[in-house]
Amino acid sequence: MTFRKVAIIGLGLLGGSIGLAIRQHLPGVRTSGYDNDPAVRLRATERGLAQEIAGSAAEAALGADLVILCVPVGAMEHAAKELSGALEPGTLVSDVGSSKQSVSAALAKALPPGQPIIPAHPVAGTEHSGPDAGFAALFHNRWCILTPPEGADPAQVAALSEFWTALGAMVEVMTAEHHDLVLAVTSHIPHLIAYTIVGTASDLEDVTRGEVIKYSAGGFRDFTRIAASDPVMWRDVFLNNREAVLEMLGRFTEDLTAMQRAIRSGNGDALFDLFTRTRAIRRSIIEQKQDDARPDFGRGDHG
Amino acid sequence: MTFRKVAIIGLGLLGGSIGLAIRQHLPGVRTSGYDNDPAVRLRATERGLAQEIAGSAAEAALGADLVILCVPVGAMEHAAKELSGALEPGTLVSDVGSSKQSVSAALAKALPPGQPIIPAHPVAGTEHSGPDAGFAALFHNRWCILTPPEGADPAQVAALSEFWTALGAMVEVMTAEHHDLVLAVTSHIPHLIAYTIVGTASDLEDVTRGEVIKYSAGGFRDFTRIAASDPVMWRDVFLNNREAVLEMLGRFTEDLTAMQRAIRSGNGDALFDLFTRTRAIRRSIIEQKQDDARPDFGRGDHG
Repeated sequence: MTFRKVAIIGLGLLGGSIGLAIRQHLPGVRTSGYDNDPAVRLRATERGLAQEIAGSAAEAALGADLVILCVPVGAMEHAAKELSGALEPGTLVSDVGSSKQSVSAALAKALPPGQPIIPAHPVAGTEHSGPDAGFAALFHNRWCILTPPEGADPAQVAALSEFWTALGAMVEVMTAEHHDLVLAVTSHIPHLIAYTIVGTASDLEDVTRGEVIKYSAGGFRDFTRIAASDPVMWRDVFLNNREAVLEMLGRFTEDLTAMQRAIRSGNGDALFDLFTRTRAIRRSIIEQKQDDARPDFGRGDHG
Repeated sequence: MTFRKVAIIGLGLLGGSIGLAIRQHLPGVRTSGYDNDPAVRLRATERGLAQEIAGSAAEAALGADLVILCVPVGAMEHAAKELSGALEPGTLVSDVGSSKQSVSAALAKALPPGQPIIPAHPVAGTEHSGPDAGFAALFHNRWCILTPPEGADPAQVAALSEFWTALGAMVEVMTAEHHDLVLAVTSHIPHLIAYTIVGTASDLEDVTRGEVIKYSAGGFRDFTRIAASDPVMWRDVFLNNREAVLEMLGRFTEDLTAMQRAIRSGNGDALFDLFTRTRAIRRSIIEQKQDDARPDFGRGDHG
């Protein structure tokens, strides 16, 4: 492993999981961590999310050859500025943010010219957040996308790739622009839709909130799971990946309008065609082990 | 238990689960079953989904004091007609369909005047379908909604309620009209949205299907799970609960448009407010045991 000391800034679900995954998979690599919230730092110490919990971002970054920013994408620039004075010229700065064009720009702006920067995004998570949410296996069999800027050092791209592979992830390299488009579809729009429908259901007058909760096993509860994700993180994602999100949202609403028309006009064939087509993509996701085939609406104890 | 013999017409996920649940929870009750598909009948025999697998719906209904139709809602009228000649005057006819006004009307039309009818809807299911999908615990801790028509015999409502309670369900009684509105929100719209976004993602030109699959762990895969549900069943639901679905879809798209505007104008507060509000409903669902709190995006092996 190229990196001897990794500094983790932000000790929530992602940062904490990285610390625990390093402890499990790369026991020779030292870790330091920092979080703006003192309560999080305390809990991180108790759980051992990093070997050393520092009193500032700069202190955590001292002597690190890899710094990973695990804060909401709207806080990246500020976090990078806080620690920029502590970086050695060769220290690689990376992150785990869900939008990459904005983070790339923020880091380039905050850090000294020439500081190596390779943004990254491990496509993994749960609906839980905070220092108790992380676990070492979070990245197992998940994809981590690297978006090196033009002119990035291939040796550092390889080193970061090796790092994520060691934590159990599979690595893919693409441009920040393409990343933002792909994730708008596979992550951002699903979250936006889930948040919205849960909001719609909470505000109805003719159906009570109690009824929505009681009968949520009909499908709705899966949306509430996604809609329980961290609000600050997600606010920042939508503000920072605005164009791709609006583009994909436009395509979704066009398709939804077509479905609405099919229902209104009683066009059962159009509905049946779509409902059949969508099964194939589910099969591929299971084949590629990005989900498992156990029935889940029933949740547990199937005979 | 009031019922001595229950006939189950349609031996997919719901019908099969009822058969297995009766065997487990009501061993004194006899069961007969029928499915239009000979391959399903064969598999139902092998799995013992009912004690006797009959050669026709009418044969299955002979001597039953409760007949439960477990076919897609668009097939209810036909199934009821097929067996109506075999019914005794006091035999209670029920069903498990996801829309209740249309089923109520279909059964009343197909069955002899005066035949007792109490439509029902156990709000339970998985994304799997067919004779291999059922399991005895499917109804445990799930709500079953009865929608007795005006003038229904209270003793039969009580008997059907007792039956579902014995299978592990909790029972609620409401009008068919209200049922259709509630389920439009908690089940039908979530399914429609999930089918649609999975369709949108499958058809993109600038993001490949392979990429959608690889990065589905970002949230998308939860929608593919729902969108893998039985296409015939769901086509029929949308055609048969058209008004309530269109009404709720209208409210959802209004809210989605407001979110779109918030993203476009960079209104982070509006996004944050919604994303915070939606967490409360998730907590209530977990408190009421309609879902569990284990993190699920990670799917298994959290340390």
